[in-house]
Amino acid sequence: VTQHSAFAATPDPPYVAVIFTAEASDDDDGYAATLTSMRELAVRQPGFLGMESAGDRFEITVSYWRDESDARAWKTVAEHIAAQNLGRQRWYRDYRVRVCNVIRDYGAMQ
Amino acid sequence: VTQHSAFAATPDPPYVAVIFTAEASDDDDGYAATLTSMRELAVRQPGFLGMESAGDRFEITVSYWRDESDARAWKTVAEHIAAQNLGRQRWYRDYRVRVCNVIRDYGAMQ
Repeated sequence: VTQHSAFAATPDPPYVAVIFTAEASDDDDGYAATLTSMRELAVRQPGFLGMESAGDRFEITVSYWRDESDARAWKTVAEHIAAQNLGRQRWYRDYRVRVCNVIRDYGAMQ
Repeated sequence: VTQHSAFAATPDPPYVAVIFTAEASDDDDGYAATLTSMRELAVRQPGFLGMESAGDRFEITVSYWRDESDARAWKTVAEHIAAQNLGRQRWYRDYRVRVCNVIRDYGAMQ
């Protein structure tokens, strides 16, 4: 599965981060296509600020949102609910989601 | 580089997450040994709750802490400062650090 290997260009805090950590199952049928669709859809959601993803069998994807209600709204988009259900039933052995308020950030160039 | 492919057994929120996102440089001399040392050292810090890591050339590592002062204290441990300096000078082309308050979490089994 091709991963997004790029930094998200987030604004100054505060903003919201949703940390999704997942262990893949042995069934990846349809996974890559759904992942691509979901990324294209997420980018168009209100308050979407960016996404960072790393790993393969063990994956961490962090999506960034303007506020908690924007993050929550994305969770309830119909196509995303369908993908979440497939993820639970098929693609992921286990996963965790952590919703966070980003309070401070810094980087190499700052 | 061997990654930690396991979920962190974090308690109920609130707690603190430090999201470290990094793009590797072409120089990985000494990186793996330092990473192992730093993980062993982090586990022994006050308030350390766990760590999750995924990826290789593009890496996301999330460390979890009881509170912000515990996370900040780890940043200032002498051996960790030396490793951070080597990371900036040698191993990472670029990186971001985001310090967050985890307000809500859920998983497949809940």
